[in-house]
Amino acid sequence: MRLATLTSGGDCPGLNAVIRSIVRTASSNYGSTVVGYQDGWVGLLEDRRVDLYDDEKIDRILLRGGTILGTGRLHPDKFKAGLEQIKANLADAGIDALIPIGGEGTLKGAKWLSDNGVPVVGVPKTIDNDVNGTDYTFGFDTAVSVASDAIDRLHTTAESHDRVMIVEVMGRHVGWIALHSGMAGGAHYTVIPEVPFDIDDIVKAMQRRFQMGEKYGIVVVAEGATPKEGTMEVDEGQIDQFGHQTFTGMGQQIGDEIRRRVGQDVRTTVLGHIQRGGSPTAYDRVLATRYGAAAARAAHEGKFGSCVALHGEIIDLIDLADAVDTLKTVPQYRYQEAQSMFG
Amino acid sequence: MRLATLTSGGDCPGLNAVIRSIVRTASSNYGSTVVGYQDGWVGLLEDRRVDLYDDEKIDRILLRGGTILGTGRLHPDKFKAGLEQIKANLADAGIDALIPIGGEGTLKGAKWLSDNGVPVVGVPKTIDNDVNGTDYTFGFDTAVSVASDAIDRLHTTAESHDRVMIVEVMGRHVGWIALHSGMAGGAHYTVIPEVPFDIDDIVKAMQRRFQMGEKYGIVVVAEGATPKEGTMEVDEGQIDQFGHQTFTGMGQQIGDEIRRRVGQDVRTTVLGHIQRGGSPTAYDRVLATRYGAAAARAAHEGKFGSCVALHGEIIDLIDLADAVDTLKTVPQYRYQEAQSMFG
Amino acid sequence: MRLATLTSGGDCPGLNAVIRSIVRTASSNYGSTVVGYQDGWVGLLEDRRVDLYDDEKIDRILLRGGTILGTGRLHPDKFKAGLEQIKANLADAGIDALIPIGGEGTLKGAKWLSDNGVPVVGVPKTIDNDVNGTDYTFGFDTAVSVASDAIDRLHTTAESHDRVMIVEVMGRHVGWIALHSGMAGGAHYTVIPEVPFDIDDIVKAMQRRFQMGEKYGIVVVAEGATPKEGTMEVDEGQIDQFGHQTFTGMGQQIGDEIRRRVGQDVRTTVLGHIQRGGSPTAYDRVLATRYGAAAARAAHEGKFGSCVALHGEIIDLIDLADAVDTLKTVPQYRYQEAQSMFG
Amino acid sequence: MRLATLTSGGDCPGLNAVIRSIVRTASSNYGSTVVGYQDGWVGLLEDRRVDLYDDEKIDRILLRGGTILGTGRLHPDKFKAGLEQIKANLADAGIDALIPIGGEGTLKGAKWLSDNGVPVVGVPKTIDNDVNGTDYTFGFDTAVSVASDAIDRLHTTAESHDRVMIVEVMGRHVGWIALHSGMAGGAHYTVIPEVPFDIDDIVKAMQRRFQMGEKYGIVVVAEGATPKEGTMEVDEGQIDQFGHQTFTGMGQQIGDEIRRRVGQDVRTTVLGHIQRGGSPTAYDRVLATRYGAAAARAAHEGKFGSCVALHGEIIDLIDLADAVDTLKTVPQYRYQEAQSMFG
Repeated sequence: MRLATLTSGGDCPGLNAVIRSIVRTASSNYGSTVVGYQDGWVGLLEDRRVDLYDDEKIDRILLRGGTILGTGRLHPDKFKAGLEQIKANLADAGIDALIPIGGEGTLKGAKWLSDNGVPVVGVPKTIDNDVNGTDYTFGFDTAVSVASDAIDRLHTTAESHDRVMIVEVMGRHVGWIALHSGMAGGAHYTVIPEVPFDIDDIVKAMQRRFQMGEKYGIVVVAEGATPKEGTMEVDEGQIDQFGHQTFTGMGQQIGDEIRRRVGQDVRTTVLGHIQRGGSPTAYDRVLATRYGAAAARAAHEGKFGSCVALHGEIIDLIDLADAVDTLKTVPQYRYQEAQSMFG
Repeated sequence: MRLATLTSGGDCPGLNAVIRSIVRTASSNYGSTVVGYQDGWVGLLEDRRVDLYDDEKIDRILLRGGTILGTGRLHPDKFKAGLEQIKANLADAGIDALIPIGGEGTLKGAKWLSDNGVPVVGVPKTIDNDVNGTDYTFGFDTAVSVASDAIDRLHTTAESHDRVMIVEVMGRHVGWIALHSGMAGGAHYTVIPEVPFDIDDIVKAMQRRFQMGEKYGIVVVAEGATPKEGTMEVDEGQIDQFGHQTFTGMGQQIGDEIRRRVGQDVRTTVLGHIQRGGSPTAYDRVLATRYGAAAARAAHEGKFGSCVALHGEIIDLIDLADAVDTLKTVPQYRYQEAQSMFG
Repeated sequence: MRLATLTSGGDCPGLNAVIRSIVRTASSNYGSTVVGYQDGWVGLLEDRRVDLYDDEKIDRILLRGGTILGTGRLHPDKFKAGLEQIKANLADAGIDALIPIGGEGTLKGAKWLSDNGVPVVGVPKTIDNDVNGTDYTFGFDTAVSVASDAIDRLHTTAESHDRVMIVEVMGRHVGWIALHSGMAGGAHYTVIPEVPFDIDDIVKAMQRRFQMGEKYGIVVVAEGATPKEGTMEVDEGQIDQFGHQTFTGMGQQIGDEIRRRVGQDVRTTVLGHIQRGGSPTAYDRVLATRYGAAAARAAHEGKFGSCVALHGEIIDLIDLADAVDTLKTVPQYRYQEAQSMFG
Repeated sequence: MRLATLTSGGDCPGLNAVIRSIVRTASSNYGSTVVGYQDGWVGLLEDRRVDLYDDEKIDRILLRGGTILGTGRLHPDKFKAGLEQIKANLADAGIDALIPIGGEGTLKGAKWLSDNGVPVVGVPKTIDNDVNGTDYTFGFDTAVSVASDAIDRLHTTAESHDRVMIVEVMGRHVGWIALHSGMAGGAHYTVIPEVPFDIDDIVKAMQRRFQMGEKYGIVVVAEGATPKEGTMEVDEGQIDQFGHQTFTGMGQQIGDEIRRRVGQDVRTTVLGHIQRGGSPTAYDRVLATRYGAAAARAAHEGKFGSCVALHGEIIDLIDLADAVDTLKTVPQYRYQEAQSMFG
């Protein structure tokens, strides 16, 4: 058999571990070969591919962040318009099954390809942990670890200076990284997109701390946090001369409000891209390796239209349709559980 | 309500996070108080206890390894003989529920107390990940991370010297740490107690590597690994003058055999206690915090005789009987999955 | 003898290690006692002090970031006006020598106190490494390590996305952190305050990379970097409604220019306060411990008006006047050495 | 000009950073080319060499442990007998200067080659920090960091179990790693080869801790530690059937004595090869990069027979004779300074 794989969408620690695992499982269990398309769907459309050999070189990418195949984004219209080209390219390369690794958008594309006759097995990828139907995705644990390490560092410097520290972490639509890194980092308040915040609550929580004699506070804010209607004026941003939207991040805005109301020194740290780069944690390497192995097996067993998924200790196959059905958001009870640790 | 907790058995990163979470959940959700018994069952029997206040001091133990309560071991006979004393001590301190945190032995004790009328909720603790009925336990991810970091370091030094490196990791009865750290660390062979090894297989795997032009090999060995009957003579150890059993670790013994047969330089590293100390990973802090919160809730809801457990993303309650029923070993298919990555 | 110490100015990993070392050296070598004034000069002026005992509690602060004494800033005029109060407070507490730990401003204050009859031994502290007369100061290595770890993470994500990554690190007046973390992190260009930059050079360096087939570039920018006159328009910032000066950081401004000119995706990460918090590196713990020990010895030997300093492997004493004489900037040849590694 | 380099002796984090820096400095400052001989002197003798290009591949080795050139050991007699072959090989490859990177033995070889007419510039390499004439060598900081991290982890587990923990670190002839990691890790006693130990002193120190109510103790032991004559019987080891000398490590032997005398649980951890593998710290990357750059400059300036060396902030050149003159041991006052922190 001859498999193809590609990585699409945002960078995510563990992509290389999945690629390696597909290659090794295909080679050692089935004697199959694997090719990789470069820069996501774009490379598939433009037939830019490389042979991936089961050698020392592929072996050593396990611990490297990023993706040796590169990644890219392709507009859905162009993608759909390219169907015949994609089929031709796959046929030309003698590909029996395609394993795209990507987030919600990529998996939607995979589903559409599958519906249109391409043999596909998907691998979910999102540092945000927002793909439906799977407990966790690789990259999330690394992102949480990086954020949690940063929060650990901020505790001591905040305490020495009687400061409130705001930490803005990734998460435009879902608050998983904020929830877990806030819990792991011992945040005194955490704000997630799923629960619109009342700035009064945050201010009161910080005031209470200082009144009780504590010397500082840590607030973790997901970048997509939004205030309850009518509770805080928000900078909507503007388009700059280069067509880039610029706006003050929500962490910064919350920090400014707290400074004004609490009368305490406030500093904001935006963690940014260090959350999605670098060597994956051991957890993510194991999960990514198991995903890759399960996807290669599924491809050899002809289980197309499926997507690998973690359920407890088991790597399952779910229908691609279920993976892209909806965004996995933080449930109410998880936020309440976190709230008990605030303060 | 008034809760009591204690930590028993071997040290494990995340114990303090559980204690903190019990105290905070009890305090902020129920207005309850918590006492801690020192040095495990021993302290309970000897009525050595401390009040645990929901203050800054308890807040900051989240990231500390070890346990502020200390831990200890008590012979089951003494433990059982002390039942009336234990009951008297709990009554005297006004305890409504006891939350012991410990491994298989501790949970067996908890079950026995529960059967004898003590209101108990258990929290499973094992860096070995061998407690039945729960996907993972806190401490395991930290142990795997430490071992995986060490393996990363050994790759480069092994490669520079054309060496085989043996890494002995924890796991007397089960091979979870070896399995996961071997997979995360890109080991070329992993040996676990559940699958008796044939030294010939390991030797051949290493020889194959050198024949193919690779310059080194990494073998991860769980301390409880055992050879298939008749395949290798084993040092059974002896009792030294201080009553301590001394024997050459299995990692060392496997290393000696490989050196003799492969004719390559072989070095053995025994990771030892660094796997069970130190600050827990973000994953373990979250899991430990959620366990503590769930145990406190279960105690307040009167769900005694139960044990908290992780099932997917959910913290469940299982019957204590199910937690101590059997040791959770590495299933065959997980080892096969790992084997695809060898070589 | 009875010593006093205090920590003043910005937070810096290793402050607690110095405090611990002063206390232990005083206690075990001389049988002396130590008190700590809280929140820097302010606490000295207001006579807020705590006894520092040579016990397990002080022993364990070695690895904690921040300062158990707190830190603060005091306007030089108020400080000088308080001379008699300071002398009275020291006399009242029976202090024989004062060991202030701080940066250039603090050491200037220490010099002035010394000139006015207070027995003082200074300990230099600056994560920026800008104190004159000493090879390195504690905290610097930790800041460089944090920045270097972040740059490591950005390499892989930049490469996967064909991006230029800008990393803004600390350093308003000197470029030591940028120089060392850029060299350690393998930056393709580094900008420091000592050498005004020509944006054309940076743009050309990035263009050359992409022309040569490289897929990304990393530029490290010290926050105090400034363009050569006439080469780039700079956002001077403005005072917002809360009296806070807001301006776009230099990293962001350079990033915007590169995006416009190179036509490549550019992202900026501002590392911020994580560089100055958290547990010190082993290097900084050793240096801080040696500084504390040397300062305690100097105090007992009556070598007042001095400041501890690292010269090669030796901890020396220099005159406080020499420590505050001028800011230690990056010499030209060090920047040239770094430049060989660009590209 | 055409340079050659090689790496010889034990593995050491930062070797790749030196190689990279030689290549980049030669290329970007002088337009020169560089070849690498494989496996140390052996590869030079056998004329096994590779061209090292100033490309992305060499750029990315900065953060990799080990050495891309491999390393090896060659008996001095064979080395000397090969002089004419070495000269012929260098001439044949058109080499104008040779830059060997290695420890004391390698630098002695370099000196001998230089005395015999080969244009040589040496780069000192030793994780043990025992090369004379230089403040520090790369690899040492990484080894100390790894050991210090391990000691941090052992504190909490020792404390939870009322244990004495022995940590054996590298250092057969000198105690620098033990001294620095013990100081950074807050050890309660440190034993180095330069100061023969009296087991009574260690036992008393531990007893004192337990008597004062402390719950544990940490003892750091350099592998080459030796008892004062007549104070402790030592296992001299024996030659096993494979010609390998086996003996109980000194850490283990000290641990056994403490267990017997103090009556407390004692555990020994031997850190081993993880101290010399893996990615170098930021400090070591900077030092290694500067060494490589200085060696390439010295070669181009015809300063042969020299060796690069760190003096304070400066990279100097010293005579190769001075580098191999004697082993740099821990001076008495440094051990005394450390002793103040014991207890």
